[in-house]
Amino acid sequence: MTDKILSISRRTRATPFTRRVEAAGVKGYTVYNHMLLPTFFESNEADYWSLCNDVQVWDVSCERQIEVTGPDSEKLIQLMTPRDISKAVIGQGMYAPLCDENGGVMNDPVLIKFARDEWWVSIADSDVRLWARGLACGFGLDVKIREADIWPLAVQGPKAEQLVTRVFGNEVPGIRFFRSKMLEFRGKAMMVMRSGYSKQGGFEIYLNDPDLAEPLWDELFEQGQDLNVRPGGPNLIERIESSLLSYNNDMTLAHNPFECGLDQFIDIDTDIESLSLQALRRIRGNHLHQLMGLVWDEPMTFARWETEVDNRVVCDIRSQAWSPRYRKHLAMAMMKRDYLQHHDEIEVEGKMARIVALPFDFDQIT
Amino acid sequence: MTDKILSISRRTRATPFTRRVEAAGVKGYTVYNHMLLPTFFESNEADYWSLCNDVQVWDVSCERQIEVTGPDSEKLIQLMTPRDISKAVIGQGMYAPLCDENGGVMNDPVLIKFARDEWWVSIADSDVRLWARGLACGFGLDVKIREADIWPLAVQGPKAEQLVTRVFGNEVPGIRFFRSKMLEFRGKAMMVMRSGYSKQGGFEIYLNDPDLAEPLWDELFEQGQDLNVRPGGPNLIERIESSLLSYNNDMTLAHNPFECGLDQFIDIDTDIESLSLQALRRIRGNHLHQLMGLVWDEPMTFARWETEVDNRVVCDIRSQAWSPRYRKHLAMAMMKRDYLQHHDEIEVEGKMARIVALPFDFDQIT
Repeated sequence: MTDKILSISRRTRATPFTRRVEAAGVKGYTVYNHMLLPTFFESNEADYWSLCNDVQVWDVSCERQIEVTGPDSEKLIQLMTPRDISKAVIGQGMYAPLCDENGGVMNDPVLIKFARDEWWVSIADSDVRLWARGLACGFGLDVKIREADIWPLAVQGPKAEQLVTRVFGNEVPGIRFFRSKMLEFRGKAMMVMRSGYSKQGGFEIYLNDPDLAEPLWDELFEQGQDLNVRPGGPNLIERIESSLLSYNNDMTLAHNPFECGLDQFIDIDTDIESLSLQALRRIRGNHLHQLMGLVWDEPMTFARWETEVDNRVVCDIRSQAWSPRYRKHLAMAMMKRDYLQHHDEIEVEGKMARIVALPFDFDQIT
Repeated sequence: MTDKILSISRRTRATPFTRRVEAAGVKGYTVYNHMLLPTFFESNEADYWSLCNDVQVWDVSCERQIEVTGPDSEKLIQLMTPRDISKAVIGQGMYAPLCDENGGVMNDPVLIKFARDEWWVSIADSDVRLWARGLACGFGLDVKIREADIWPLAVQGPKAEQLVTRVFGNEVPGIRFFRSKMLEFRGKAMMVMRSGYSKQGGFEIYLNDPDLAEPLWDELFEQGQDLNVRPGGPNLIERIESSLLSYNNDMTLAHNPFECGLDQFIDIDTDIESLSLQALRRIRGNHLHQLMGLVWDEPMTFARWETEVDNRVVCDIRSQAWSPRYRKHLAMAMMKRDYLQHHDEIEVEGKMARIVALPFDFDQIT
């Protein structure tokens, strides 16, 4: 497929950073939560090296914050996730799959308990707000649910801490992973969390004043000049090397947390009130698929994503990229578990792939 | 803004027609219900004339069908829409805004009563399925809700009836607007409805077998050669001239049906059980905005969508295009009602626009 233009409209919402993103020479977007998400500026590979070597600023406004407030807010959040949220600490991020009453994955947000009776659901690409409102209405819960006026900006890469410290001050290095502090920019306090959709380290700044978007962007680029700061976005190569899942790419509502390898993020043996608990207890051990890694020694192109063996789809490639660092072609694929019992490789498009567990372990692979 | 590439992934789902769409030379896509929607092949304007003069085939698979089945299906659908659905006829389409308990527009689908206790909600761009599942779960309704394996293909333009008749037979001309028949293609019966997102006339074929997608596409192009059939998609120019609303462009959850001019599609004085009824009765007459048409005599470009008067946004342009037929620049804008009481024009980007009611009346405008 040759490159196609994205037709941009009000429906594919711009962000408070879009003018700067455009001025910085963005070349590609995807649409995520009905919003523009920059995907690359130079090329996937050039952006990859900049992210891994230096520091990048990403407009991830599309990580919309579904704000749930009110006396029943914790109850509603717990209904939506099979992860026990009772021990959540204020200001802490908690990765938690959301699951419906059939155990299907509705989304895989980072939950943030922002204050007592105030939760932010930092969502992947599906309208969680609609599900939450339906549940709240049907169960008669005393909550308010809205998309908050928050536009996250990520600073990612090995020099991110240095850069964010220059802009937000000396409290930054003390922030632990998935913890946050309210820090000031131009006199306005906003949440700064050590987090982000890469494994290169970094922070997400939860901008809460659109008028400060361009000053913040400019300040990061000014202060980061000697650090080689570049604009970027979630990088396909880096996120696959790092085995970071992408909702609706690697898994959908048709999959349950076991199939996605999210077992460690659910607490189905705990006594919590959650919609999916019964279904997940029933499914455990009987799930049909498993998300696996595939590794080829040469660059691949794919005419189709699904591979059949004996007239049955056993492998469905969900994400894939050539890794310039490891010189391997990597994929994440939803595979039939019974096939995995007897096979540790599979032929795709005429080339044998090794089947490996996720996350990718490059000591083993290379 | 220069053109940007759409980064395509599994998350921006392909359709059973995508290979043919690509082979036909699609140049632009948007993402709609997490799915690729072709926007233009030659140019917006060239595609416009082909649509208005001849006939086009559109891959509108992204009009996902949310299938609601079970004994409580009608109850759930009625909860979601303030339009009285009790008189719906099987096989009939019914344009109906969906509204939440605050009266906000959740979506504006075409509802299709496919059979007793089986409804299809042919949705615009928001995850209605999630809202429906939340409501069904909370209210304990006996329904099944899923995204059906249906991929609509539209045939639009003045020669559409001729073309669809050649492929689906002589029953086609007898189908009235928003009515349908189950007609066969290669021995498989599928719903053919007189409908579509243009005012040039035409049909939508609700393909129910992905293996027939390419044969159907090919057959339409083969049979339509002498009719000048072309690939196309919802055309920005035509849909604005025809004042066809686009959810999340022209209106959002922040707007109610009165503001969108959808009064005629709701029945809030009828005794139906619908979530939004109380809110809408309260709002009626007190709504703040009104979707209006704007007309300039010359082509416009816009640096910003919102226009302030006395430090207050009174006009928010939601969709806009130059009409090559009428030689006017047209926009749909959400405007403050109190401004409209005293003004019939507004200065935007230094140029005066006439404010007109929707739908556009070109006898008056030109």
